[in-house]
Amino acid sequence: MDIKNIENKLSNFSSIRDWDQFHSVKNLSMALSVECAELLEIVQWMSEDESNQLTSEHPKYQNVKDEVADVFLYLVRICQKTGIDLESASLEKIEKNELKYPVELSKGNAPKYTDLKK
Amino acid sequence: MDIKNIENKLSNFSSIRDWDQFHSVKNLSMALSVECAELLEIVQWMSEDESNQLTSEHPKYQNVKDEVADVFLYLVRICQKTGIDLESASLEKIEKNELKYPVELSKGNAPKYTDLKK
Amino acid sequence: MDIKNIENKLSNFSSIRDWDQFHSVKNLSMALSVECAELLEIVQWMSEDESNQLTSEHPKYQNVKDEVADVFLYLVRICQKTGIDLESASLEKIEKNELKYPVELSKGNAPKYTDLKK
Amino acid sequence: MDIKNIENKLSNFSSIRDWDQFHSVKNLSMALSVECAELLEIVQWMSEDESNQLTSEHPKYQNVKDEVADVFLYLVRICQKTGIDLESASLEKIEKNELKYPVELSKGNAPKYTDLKK
Repeated sequence: MDIKNIENKLSNFSSIRDWDQFHSVKNLSMALSVECAELLEIVQWMSEDESNQLTSEHPKYQNVKDEVADVFLYLVRICQKTGIDLESASLEKIEKNELKYPVELSKGNAPKYTDLKK
Repeated sequence: MDIKNIENKLSNFSSIRDWDQFHSVKNLSMALSVECAELLEIVQWMSEDESNQLTSEHPKYQNVKDEVADVFLYLVRICQKTGIDLESASLEKIEKNELKYPVELSKGNAPKYTDLKK
Repeated sequence: MDIKNIENKLSNFSSIRDWDQFHSVKNLSMALSVECAELLEIVQWMSEDESNQLTSEHPKYQNVKDEVADVFLYLVRICQKTGIDLESASLEKIEKNELKYPVELSKGNAPKYTDLKK
Repeated sequence: MDIKNIENKLSNFSSIRDWDQFHSVKNLSMALSVECAELLEIVQWMSEDESNQLTSEHPKYQNVKDEVADVFLYLVRICQKTGIDLESASLEKIEKNELKYPVELSKGNAPKYTDLKK
């Protein structure tokens, strides 16, 4: 993924509209949550099985795709503002999670997952 | 960004713990929202200016980095389950946004931004 | 419910800690979302049936109760700051919803519910 | 506040539409988060000062009122499903918060607020 390209497009999009003044990390974090909730709204009354059918043939697929993209775009914007390298942050977090949820304790056990997290 | 590599690590992480059973699109969307809120929690009482200082020297920087990574990891997972290509979805959405928020109407005008969105 | 009593306790709580400076409607709305997400976190990996067992005997019941209370307390605080009368706002909204979701179109039909909402 | 009256209206609203089947605690928690995000969307690009002007004369006041009401209605619904008494839960939580945030440590200090919370 050419994330530099996406970053550049976002910077241009914002600066040409004079929107950098609104893009504090605080506001971007709120916008990120709002976009997530728009995804949540699509699946809220679906059963889990129904939600798993949200692939390319589904009438709501384009909506899901748009919301997923919006979440990502605000996330990239937050990374730009904070100087976070999303790829290395992600790899680092996966390693942390591997230590946090040892296979023997976590296997097949989501409720424990939640408890271990605390 | 080598997103295929991240996807593979996530698939392995989940399958070795037998967690695929919990990873419906519905549940992953909830988890995504929860992680966003953990980011929100960091900035909620900060002023906008304070939030803009969340760069590498800031005592909360590592927390921000971890939450941003968690949001991204669940987002990638949702893409895996739905078959969304995150890069092309993002480029497509940027183009849509350019049409949705014409420069002449949007320039410097965030409240209008919100209204146009409706 | 003696909501005036709760309001008074919240005002005192905040003013004695000199926290009114942080309680803008913007910040309180963020805090409200964060508390909701803490409730979401409890149920995210549960099945719907499991979530329906979150009554007084359940080991997570106290957690649910605490998060529900936190959501309510921030909501009351937002009402204080905006001058909203929660009871009349609620009754008014129920009436709106009755018009928005006519029984004949909505009956037993949650996916339509979502579509009607748009 | 006559909360029993609101509860009855909500029960009727739902049962006449045959929507109880969708109102698991899990789904209601998602819906609660979605409604909070709709409130968040109203304030996300506002400054804190602007958000404090969201009183009865403001053009967005009715929107805020509607979203606040929606949050409350889902919260009452969750209380119905779990058997939580909202008033006593709230009073209990205020007492907990008084112990959790001792005046001498918390006074005027929101960043510490967050840290104490952990």
